[in-house]
Amino acid sequence: MRIDIITCLPKLLEGPFSDSILKRAQEKELVEIHVHDLRTYSTHKQRSIDDYAYGGGAGMVLQIEPIAAAIDDLKSQRTYDEVIYMSPDGEQFTQTLANQLALKGNLLILCGHYKGVDERVRQHYITKEISIGDYVISGGELAAAVVTDAIVRLLPGVLSDETSALTDSYQDGLLAPPVYSRPADFKGLKVPDVLLSGHAANIEKWRFEQAVKRTEERRPDLFKKE
Amino acid sequence: MRIDIITCLPKLLEGPFSDSILKRAQEKELVEIHVHDLRTYSTHKQRSIDDYAYGGGAGMVLQIEPIAAAIDDLKSQRTYDEVIYMSPDGEQFTQTLANQLALKGNLLILCGHYKGVDERVRQHYITKEISIGDYVISGGELAAAVVTDAIVRLLPGVLSDETSALTDSYQDGLLAPPVYSRPADFKGLKVPDVLLSGHAANIEKWRFEQAVKRTEERRPDLFKKE
Repeated sequence: MRIDIITCLPKLLEGPFSDSILKRAQEKELVEIHVHDLRTYSTHKQRSIDDYAYGGGAGMVLQIEPIAAAIDDLKSQRTYDEVIYMSPDGEQFTQTLANQLALKGNLLILCGHYKGVDERVRQHYITKEISIGDYVISGGELAAAVVTDAIVRLLPGVLSDETSALTDSYQDGLLAPPVYSRPADFKGLKVPDVLLSGHAANIEKWRFEQAVKRTEERRPDLFKKE
Repeated sequence: MRIDIITCLPKLLEGPFSDSILKRAQEKELVEIHVHDLRTYSTHKQRSIDDYAYGGGAGMVLQIEPIAAAIDDLKSQRTYDEVIYMSPDGEQFTQTLANQLALKGNLLILCGHYKGVDERVRQHYITKEISIGDYVISGGELAAAVVTDAIVRLLPGVLSDETSALTDSYQDGLLAPPVYSRPADFKGLKVPDVLLSGHAANIEKWRFEQAVKRTEERRPDLFKKE
């Protein structure tokens, strides 16, 4: 899989891809992640890529010209399954959508910033708009990192133990059960006896019951969806 | 405002806070963001902070001992309004919650990683659990960065023009209207005439109509909530 990300602030994406699972996935060549600086596609002397919004008002708008040049350049090199724009009014990102995108070959993600991108980009260059939640952040960079992380960890071979992703919250429509590790007694706070029993069937039963209980308490809407 | 973040992978948080709005907010001393490496609180020789889950199964668990030490140490230095744990089964993060948290003084955010943290941490040390959406990512670091970004940009003086945040999606229960910038004609793709008219009242009317239309088309549930 290959993920290309276009941003006007590439520095924001240096950390998230430089350690842990995303780093190892790239080292194992299970995914290629390329961050492209939008400013390199600017034709202005000062590499500007934004301007005031037509009609006035606060906030700058990312202009169509450098974005169109960047997308056209990347599309001339390979075919993309989706050209994604991160935006708070896009389709809600869910584990289901992560699973679907993890089956794709090439994804191109455009990060907005400031007030967003010129609407003509969204109408004519973007095939899918994704929101990571009902809130506003400074730009699409963190959102693109979240989506990339959620997708890449699902690729076969990325997690050291493949069953790990399958037991996560949301994969089976249930929240994950509580987990405990050593010590069994921390200042009087104890691990449930069943987890120390060594009785595999009882442990599985307890975990399933806890997952159901937690889902009922915290997210009863997950049951209604099915 | 002060935000302390405890993580076992501090490198993941280097990028998001080192540029753009979060960088400027810290330079202007409108917010202090401190990232704490959980490993410095480990009492093991090799600074380990995770171990297998009791009861078996894939994935490592962040242990209670270093986390309790980190939280106790920070709490001994100041009072926190909330001790937050980022988790996919937490309360859904929304713009409303971002607005509420932006009014606080000191926030402490604990990032899980791998299979999460020992349940006793959640029961006895955490005052609020927050999820950024219905999907699983490798750890709480990106989630903590998202929450921090959403909060900090709301602090007075952080955005250069304070009306900018007020016109964002979700702040008034509507998605934001489309934005356009120069050129007015890009390869035949044109900016709506009204935005070039200079008629402020007509522009406001058009933007409101577009915001309502976009909300009706994309997120009719936002109307039902009111």
